[in-house]
Amino acid sequence: MDHGNTLNSTPNQRKRNICLIGSGGVGTIASLVLEKSGRAEVTAVLRSKFAVIRERGWDIESVDHGCLKGWRPTRVVSNIVDAVVPNEPFDFIVITTKQLPEAYSVAELVKPAVSPGHTSIVLIQNGLDIEVPIIAAFPNNTVISGISMIGSRVNGENCIIHDGPDDLVIGTHFHDGKDRTVQHQQTREFVNIYAAGTVGPGAISGKCTFTDNMLVARWQKLLWNSTFNTLCTLLRMDVGELQSSGGRETLLIPAMWEVYAIAKAVGHAPAKEMIHHYAYRSSNDCRYRPSMLLDLENNRPMELEVLLGNPLRKAKQNGVSTPILSTVYELLKVEKWRIDHEKGTNILDTQKFS
Amino acid sequence: MDHGNTLNSTPNQRKRNICLIGSGGVGTIASLVLEKSGRAEVTAVLRSKFAVIRERGWDIESVDHGCLKGWRPTRVVSNIVDAVVPNEPFDFIVITTKQLPEAYSVAELVKPAVSPGHTSIVLIQNGLDIEVPIIAAFPNNTVISGISMIGSRVNGENCIIHDGPDDLVIGTHFHDGKDRTVQHQQTREFVNIYAAGTVGPGAISGKCTFTDNMLVARWQKLLWNSTFNTLCTLLRMDVGELQSSGGRETLLIPAMWEVYAIAKAVGHAPAKEMIHHYAYRSSNDCRYRPSMLLDLENNRPMELEVLLGNPLRKAKQNGVSTPILSTVYELLKVEKWRIDHEKGTNILDTQKFS
Repeated sequence: MDHGNTLNSTPNQRKRNICLIGSGGVGTIASLVLEKSGRAEVTAVLRSKFAVIRERGWDIESVDHGCLKGWRPTRVVSNIVDAVVPNEPFDFIVITTKQLPEAYSVAELVKPAVSPGHTSIVLIQNGLDIEVPIIAAFPNNTVISGISMIGSRVNGENCIIHDGPDDLVIGTHFHDGKDRTVQHQQTREFVNIYAAGTVGPGAISGKCTFTDNMLVARWQKLLWNSTFNTLCTLLRMDVGELQSSGGRETLLIPAMWEVYAIAKAVGHAPAKEMIHHYAYRSSNDCRYRPSMLLDLENNRPMELEVLLGNPLRKAKQNGVSTPILSTVYELLKVEKWRIDHEKGTNILDTQKFS
Repeated sequence: MDHGNTLNSTPNQRKRNICLIGSGGVGTIASLVLEKSGRAEVTAVLRSKFAVIRERGWDIESVDHGCLKGWRPTRVVSNIVDAVVPNEPFDFIVITTKQLPEAYSVAELVKPAVSPGHTSIVLIQNGLDIEVPIIAAFPNNTVISGISMIGSRVNGENCIIHDGPDDLVIGTHFHDGKDRTVQHQQTREFVNIYAAGTVGPGAISGKCTFTDNMLVARWQKLLWNSTFNTLCTLLRMDVGELQSSGGRETLLIPAMWEVYAIAKAVGHAPAKEMIHHYAYRSSNDCRYRPSMLLDLENNRPMELEVLLGNPLRKAKQNGVSTPILSTVYELLKVEKWRIDHEKGTNILDTQKFS
C-alpha cells in the first residue's frame, strides 16, 4: 500500500499521523511545531520522561513559540509498541534520538511502528551514513533526513529552553525501492507540514527548508560537527576558547580542510567558503559548549562514530590523509573508554552499596 | 684557567665546590647524594623555599637514604648572586629546574656562577637540545647532562618523598671549545662523586652510570617522555588508564614509532626493542601520573617545547611524518594557552580583590 499520490493535499485533509521518538530539546520542539501546523497529530514516545510529562506536560520557553505551560502532544506513550494503533499506520516516524550505532540500532528501535511501503522515516539526527541501515531495513519506504540547527535543551524535569531559532534543512535519501517521485512528494509534504508549524502567533524566525542534495548538506554540517564538536570536547573548551587559544588556526581550520578533502573524494563537497564562514562566524566571547562536550562532561555516550568514525572510514576507503582527525578520533575513543569505564565503576559502586 | 688535569683525584683531595639550582624532588636528592659522597660541598640556590629550608631544613623519606630530619646542604642561598664567593669558583653547577625555554634562559640564569673555562655545567633535566644554548653561552666549559629516572617529589612545605630509586645516567655533550679529554675527565669525575654518594649506610639501590652516547640516551628517554607524558596529560589519565583504554595500541605505540623515526633520521636511534619494553613494562594498575600531567592539573608551566616541540622541529627539518605527535603538540599548546590564560585571570582577580 502506498498513498503517495494523495500527498499533495490541502490543509483540510485528514491530519497526518506522526510518531516521534526522542523527546529531548530537538524532538520536543519538533513535536510542538508539527502539532502547531494543524496538519498532524503527534504520538511522542518518551522513556525516562514518560511519567512526568504525562502528569505535568512540558514547560517550554521558546524563542520561536513563546512560553507554554504544561504542553503535551496529542499522545504520550512510554514505548514504541504502545504507540501503534491497529489500522492507523503512521505516515511519518520522526527520530530525534542520539545516533549511537555501537549502542543500538535505530532500524530495530523503530521497526514496530513502520508500515512497510507506507511510513516515511525522518531522521533529524547528526552524522554521516545514518540513512544506510534504515534503507537496508525498510527498502520500500521513503527515507528522509533533516539537519537541525537549533538551540534547545531540556532543563530540569520537564522544562525546555529553546533559545536558538529552529532552522531545519530536510532532504530525501533516494533509493531504488520506491518510485522517486513519491519519495520526493513525501519529503515535500513533511517540509510543508513542518514549515506551517514554524509560523503563526509567537513565531519569530523558525524555518524549515528543502534541499535536493542532502549529502552535500550533511558534509557541510560535518565541517562544523567533525571539528568544533570534537576539538572542543577533547580540550573541554567552549567555542570562544578554542578560537582564542590559537587552536582555530593550528587545529580547527586544518581539520576542516581534512573533512573537505574527504567530501570532495566522495563527490559531495560543500562550498569551500563555508570553512572560513564557520571558523570565523562566532565571536571569541561565544560560550557555546557543543553537544559532545556536554555528553563528555555528563558521562553520557558521545556521537563519535557518526560524526567522525564514518567520515574517517570514507577517508580510508578513498586514500585521503587525515592526520588531525584520525588522531582526534583515537583520543576521543580513549575518552569514550573512560566514560564506559566510569559507568562500569558506578554500577559496581551501586551494587556494592545497595 | 683549566685544572682538568687535576681531576683524576683521590677522595683525599679538596672537596669539589658545587652549586645546585632547583631544589625540587630531583634536585634535593641530588644535593643529598653529592654531600653524602664526602667529596663535595653543595650550595643550594632556593627561591620560594629559601626561608623555610634555612630555618627547618628538609625532612626526607628516601627509599635510598632512609629518613632524615631537618637536613640541609652545606650552604643555602636565596639567589645565584649570593651563591658566588670570591676566589672560590664552582667546579660544577648542577641544574635541576624545569626546562622552559619559552619562559626563561638557563644560560642567563646560571651565568653569575659560571667561571669561564672552569665550571662544568650539569643539566639534570628532560628534553632535547637543552645543551645547545649552554654550549653557545659557555663555549670553553664542559657541558654534561643527566637523565634521571627517580620517583621523588616535594610534599608540603619542606618534605621530600623519595619512593622510586635514584637512577641517573650521565654523559658529555662534546664540543670543540675545550680539550675532549678534559671534557671526558670532568664528566667521569662528576659520575664518580655522584656514584660515591648513592652507596653507603641506608642506600638500597641508587645508581649513577656513565654513557658515552648521551644523544641516543636522550632519544631513548624521549620514547617515553614524548608519548606517555604528553598523551597522559592530554587525556588526564595515569599510565595504567592509558594502557587499559586501548590507547596504548592506537596512539602510544604509533607515537613511539614516530619518535623512533625522528631519532633514526638524525642518526641517534635507540634500540627498537625499547618501544615494546616501555609500552608494556608497567602494569595496568599503575597509577603513575607523569610530571606534565601534574603540571597541567596544577596550572603550572609544562615542559612541552623540550619534550615535543624540539623533536618535532627535527622531524620537520628531516621530512619525517609525525601525524600523531604533531596533533598532540598542537592540542597541548592549546592547553598551555589555557594555563597561561587562567593565570592571567587569576592575576586580575588578585588585583581586583587586594
